[in-house]
Amino acid sequence: MTEPDWIAVDWGTSNQRAWLMDGTGRVIDRRASDRGMNTLARADFEGALLDLVGDALPAMRETPVIVCGMAGSQQGWAEAPYRKAPCAPPGLAEATRAPTTDPRITVRILPGIRQDRPADVMRGEETQIKGFLAAHPSFDGVICLPGTHTKWVQISAGEVVSFRTFMSGELYALIAGQSVLRHTLADGWDDKAFDAAVSEAISNPAMTAATLFSLRAEALLHELPGASARARLSGTLIGLELGGARPYWLGQPIMLAGEGGLATAYAAALKAQGAEVTPLAVEDLTLAGLAAAHAELKGGTS
Amino acid sequence: MTEPDWIAVDWGTSNQRAWLMDGTGRVIDRRASDRGMNTLARADFEGALLDLVGDALPAMRETPVIVCGMAGSQQGWAEAPYRKAPCAPPGLAEATRAPTTDPRITVRILPGIRQDRPADVMRGEETQIKGFLAAHPSFDGVICLPGTHTKWVQISAGEVVSFRTFMSGELYALIAGQSVLRHTLADGWDDKAFDAAVSEAISNPAMTAATLFSLRAEALLHELPGASARARLSGTLIGLELGGARPYWLGQPIMLAGEGGLATAYAAALKAQGAEVTPLAVEDLTLAGLAAAHAELKGGTS
Repeated sequence: MTEPDWIAVDWGTSNQRAWLMDGTGRVIDRRASDRGMNTLARADFEGALLDLVGDALPAMRETPVIVCGMAGSQQGWAEAPYRKAPCAPPGLAEATRAPTTDPRITVRILPGIRQDRPADVMRGEETQIKGFLAAHPSFDGVICLPGTHTKWVQISAGEVVSFRTFMSGELYALIAGQSVLRHTLADGWDDKAFDAAVSEAISNPAMTAATLFSLRAEALLHELPGASARARLSGTLIGLELGGARPYWLGQPIMLAGEGGLATAYAAALKAQGAEVTPLAVEDLTLAGLAAAHAELKGGTS
Repeated sequence: MTEPDWIAVDWGTSNQRAWLMDGTGRVIDRRASDRGMNTLARADFEGALLDLVGDALPAMRETPVIVCGMAGSQQGWAEAPYRKAPCAPPGLAEATRAPTTDPRITVRILPGIRQDRPADVMRGEETQIKGFLAAHPSFDGVICLPGTHTKWVQISAGEVVSFRTFMSGELYALIAGQSVLRHTLADGWDDKAFDAAVSEAISNPAMTAATLFSLRAEALLHELPGASARARLSGTLIGLELGGARPYWLGQPIMLAGEGGLATAYAAALKAQGAEVTPLAVEDLTLAGLAAAHAELKGGTS
């Protein structure tokens, strides 16, 4: 295997992903583990990184490692203090050096972004945005990044102007996994039920907690199929969010940076509201953002 | 100790409560355990009841036991099929006999109430309503019963006309106990933060999932105190519900059947919206409802 020129790492709350990169921007190898931030004490991060990529490190020189995500939080490897919006997605000049003992690596962690009013934070998404802006430097508009904590981000003149986080994904996981509705949901999907739930929630968001209980009651009384119940739960929470995020998407083309079923659901919900949606692959954005930061290293910005 | 004339039992999902009653409607003794429906297989219910009250049973005659709550569900002791709204709170004529082997007891379980459209169910609250109506037979108006699954019930001419269940209490427990906000909340309370969150949620319910995340962000960025965060979480969920339940309480005097901090919070939120609130003690209502059913037994209705 070619020796890596540098290593890109996306280190989140529950996962760790690394790309071994050659000198021309190509990926030599991809690796991942479930040793996310919340499984590690501060002293364990360097070991966890070496377990993932140590075998590939050249012995005789320092390999730069560039990290984004929750590894840079207070509870992470080394705190990379938030930059304050409005700001460009942070680069290496704002990165924090993580303490390391292995002479084969130098580790830099990119900061997240904070917003004072309304109070909000992101850590990881700013690097995806950096990756998007590297390819579209004059983009002016909105990026939606669905996930556990979905972000809606207004971009202009290369900066994150403002953003809001909706914890709809986390609510979905809690309700589906642990509420009384867990008995009511099953695998599968029902497009019509999803679409109906999205519009119902957009037009009457205050009924959310009643709409949710009615899934249980409809299963008891009218044999609502589990797949329909699941689609309606998802549609209710995404619809609630779309009602709140309306200023972000109304009449706007939306860049949607997401993966799998969740991104498909957001795209369907947005299209039904008449929004024009462009899907973006999250992994590509993350890697492009880390590569843009690495380019700053080569350019001598840090 | 006087021998009980009959026994009233409120048997819910997670608790079992019994009152030993004399022939004049007085409580001889109160007992409780945590052997709720979800801890018991069908065959275990009789034993759990006898563990709680068996020592007090006269040997030489049958003591009637009247039960309300989830013990009458499909997963309970014996299914007491729902009555269909609009209907009066069910009485002994609609009760289900639970299978028993001990000759000292006869057990009757009162049914819950179902509503077809919008689909909804209650099991236990109908007996509290029965207790309220026993004392106020000509009541016409709304009863709110806060809890894990809060009920809003329209009463007229002695009947449950319609009702809606909001699972706000369960959402609160999940979010406070298991979401990312669990790090942000602490004991204590903040009335101003609660009031502000209630009005914010009523005026902008669609922002709920963002408002919730902002508690985490405000703790990280602006040192929001844990007690204020807890009051705001509660206020956000109760405000969301009040927005949806507005047709029930707007311009109406509200009977509020609740206990402890939750009832206090609902009362504060409703009063701030200009509603006139009369508090009712849940235990008294439950017992009055079971006593009203027992009176039907004496009257020979069953």
